[in-house]
Amino acid sequence: MDARAGYEPLTVERLPNRLVGIGALAERVGPDPSAWTVEEVGDGNLNLVFIVGGPRGTVIVKQALPYVRLVGDSWPLPLYRAFYEYHALSRQAARAPGTVPEIYHFDEAQALIVMEYLAPHVILRRKLIAGERVAGLADFLGRYCARTAFRGSELSMPSAEKKADVALFAGNVEIPAITEALVFTDPYFDAELNSHTEGLAPVVAALRADVELKVKAHQALQRFVSNTETMVHGDLHSGSIMATESECRVIDPEFVQYGPMGFDIGMLCANFLMAYFSQPAHRDADLESYQDWILGVIIQLCAVFEEEFRRLWATERTGILFPATLFEDQGHESGAACDAVLAGIWRDAWAVCGIEMHRRCLSLAHNADFEDIADVAARAALEARNLMMGADLIRSAENIRGAEAVCDMARDFNGKDIL
Amino acid sequence: MDARAGYEPLTVERLPNRLVGIGALAERVGPDPSAWTVEEVGDGNLNLVFIVGGPRGTVIVKQALPYVRLVGDSWPLPLYRAFYEYHALSRQAARAPGTVPEIYHFDEAQALIVMEYLAPHVILRRKLIAGERVAGLADFLGRYCARTAFRGSELSMPSAEKKADVALFAGNVEIPAITEALVFTDPYFDAELNSHTEGLAPVVAALRADVELKVKAHQALQRFVSNTETMVHGDLHSGSIMATESECRVIDPEFVQYGPMGFDIGMLCANFLMAYFSQPAHRDADLESYQDWILGVIIQLCAVFEEEFRRLWATERTGILFPATLFEDQGHESGAACDAVLAGIWRDAWAVCGIEMHRRCLSLAHNADFEDIADVAARAALEARNLMMGADLIRSAENIRGAEAVCDMARDFNGKDIL
Repeated sequence: MDARAGYEPLTVERLPNRLVGIGALAERVGPDPSAWTVEEVGDGNLNLVFIVGGPRGTVIVKQALPYVRLVGDSWPLPLYRAFYEYHALSRQAARAPGTVPEIYHFDEAQALIVMEYLAPHVILRRKLIAGERVAGLADFLGRYCARTAFRGSELSMPSAEKKADVALFAGNVEIPAITEALVFTDPYFDAELNSHTEGLAPVVAALRADVELKVKAHQALQRFVSNTETMVHGDLHSGSIMATESECRVIDPEFVQYGPMGFDIGMLCANFLMAYFSQPAHRDADLESYQDWILGVIIQLCAVFEEEFRRLWATERTGILFPATLFEDQGHESGAACDAVLAGIWRDAWAVCGIEMHRRCLSLAHNADFEDIADVAARAALEARNLMMGADLIRSAENIRGAEAVCDMARDFNGKDIL
Repeated sequence: MDARAGYEPLTVERLPNRLVGIGALAERVGPDPSAWTVEEVGDGNLNLVFIVGGPRGTVIVKQALPYVRLVGDSWPLPLYRAFYEYHALSRQAARAPGTVPEIYHFDEAQALIVMEYLAPHVILRRKLIAGERVAGLADFLGRYCARTAFRGSELSMPSAEKKADVALFAGNVEIPAITEALVFTDPYFDAELNSHTEGLAPVVAALRADVELKVKAHQALQRFVSNTETMVHGDLHSGSIMATESECRVIDPEFVQYGPMGFDIGMLCANFLMAYFSQPAHRDADLESYQDWILGVIIQLCAVFEEEFRRLWATERTGILFPATLFEDQGHESGAACDAVLAGIWRDAWAVCGIEMHRRCLSLAHNADFEDIADVAARAALEARNLMMGADLIRSAENIRGAEAVCDMARDFNGKDIL
């Protein structure tokens, strides 16, 4: 799948001539490539991203590079991730219609996807740093997570189809391996690519000295690598969501794999919590109300997830797990079964949430919520709150009594001076 | 993989002419097929099995049929199971050397494996019914289960290799689907192929009325279908073990899949427990001491499993899970991590154990331990003990404090009049 005779990275200059033959571009941008405007906007860690405009409209051209863009060609990364991104987007579009960009064209050899240009959407993380609100955000994300989790699992999918999908996505090895190392392991030892803000050394030392914490982090990794419950996005942070004031889309699923149903929502909540903890450095006016809005998003997102999951349980439970033959057909409610499945999801989610809060401050690929804080001492103090709460989440993931309890923890840590 | 132009089932008469060209047969049986003796001995539920003898020796020729032999051609079953059996045997031989028959030849198109003839081995289940002891049985099985569990997991295997294996075995759909239905689901509703001994109706009704029990059974199914921790045999009952007075081999891994590390040992313990409960109908003399021997096998088998698993943890933990970088290299013991992994294994094992005890009396494919009891009332009384204990195991799997506690439960149920 990764033999790439003829693969060549695009440039702004050469893109029109290289892509002139693609019908989707002629149709959606315009038939004359000399009339196209091309801008490279890839600010992520992995890929080339071009905005291509013309008389008929604008599209995105995304092309994988054979290495990690953030690090350089010393870290090779297979081009086949475009193949998995394409298949992930197709499945997300089917399972949660309207939540991901439309695909116009896929070229496997060039590791290239032509897809819908989202405007005036911007990356959600930038909005959170700027203190902007997005109407309907929690509802959108809660439904997205519930629908992709439920409909990609054997609660709903025919077993043979799900197993074929597990086999397909098991080929996506190197990209999830980044998660296995950077997210679940590197924060807890002195890994080569780690870095952290000056002043955090005592917190880092405390985390690494906590054997119970490390055991629980790697129990979560064990579930991540060997629990193929559903197709997860795999990298659902606020940089993988684009939003206007009232509309959202989920992008960049190249970390796709079959994994635990709680993985995406756990990582997502972590990124809202980091946005929350970072706010005191980004604004004075409106601080409290904006922080409250963020926590409200977490609570609402989790409530909508549960509500939508229960709705799908009642209406789309067509798979081999917990079938009606064992419950409803015998005159028994299946609510206790749904509760048990949800309890497992939340256990996984809160552990992943805590781990993501650690890795974004301790290993490679920090997030802008904290990185944009120029005052190092202020940044360290805020990151310390985030790190200590992450540890509490990992340690107590099995016993957390819902998103409200998590937000209470966050308010508590938000008032603490840890360093 | 299952296009079978030219596939043709062997018969005793035609086998010599059909297989004359196979070098392994010429070498191990003799070059002149007219000097071969052929006997068909397949008494299992699925395949043709021939013993082929000659001047140089004897081999087994096993050929898959395109349907379930036990039921007939109304239940088609893919021939590709021979492909998975072949790959399973190869991996078991590498991970637990000396525990499975040697393979001499594999013909994918004919779904045919030529393998080592085991003599004077007989099926362990027949020995247990006859009241025979096997020296070293528990040690053999404990080590087999620990080695295949550990060495097929990401505690040990490189991730890329394990993921490729998960993808390969994910193609084995229809055979594990039998387990999903017959083992985990059918006992708990009025499935078409179910049958049970006359007199058990009240027990069956009680099990099906127990919603908590059904929830826990399907949580175990959820783990079975979506937890790819290691390569499991998938059908490790006493009919899949051949033994002499002092030597054992594990056979028939066509139910292979990547699944929970506790699956095989759980199913195995269930089959020893059913042997235990059935004994009062098979002998008077020596009853107590033989029942004690069986429970001793369970206790020793679980102890050896733990001991071998801990030894491998200490000496072969080369995978991405719980690496030394997080523990030993930081001066921390990893014993608590191993304890946590083992706790998960036993939780899965005892739930599967209870479920297997149910399915062998309630759905298709009952076991001879009970089926051979001609006195229906006596059989029902013994099966009732087994069924009620199975329910207790499923309900309390998370809290069971080891194999001794399980054997105490068995002794307790062995004295109960349930019907």
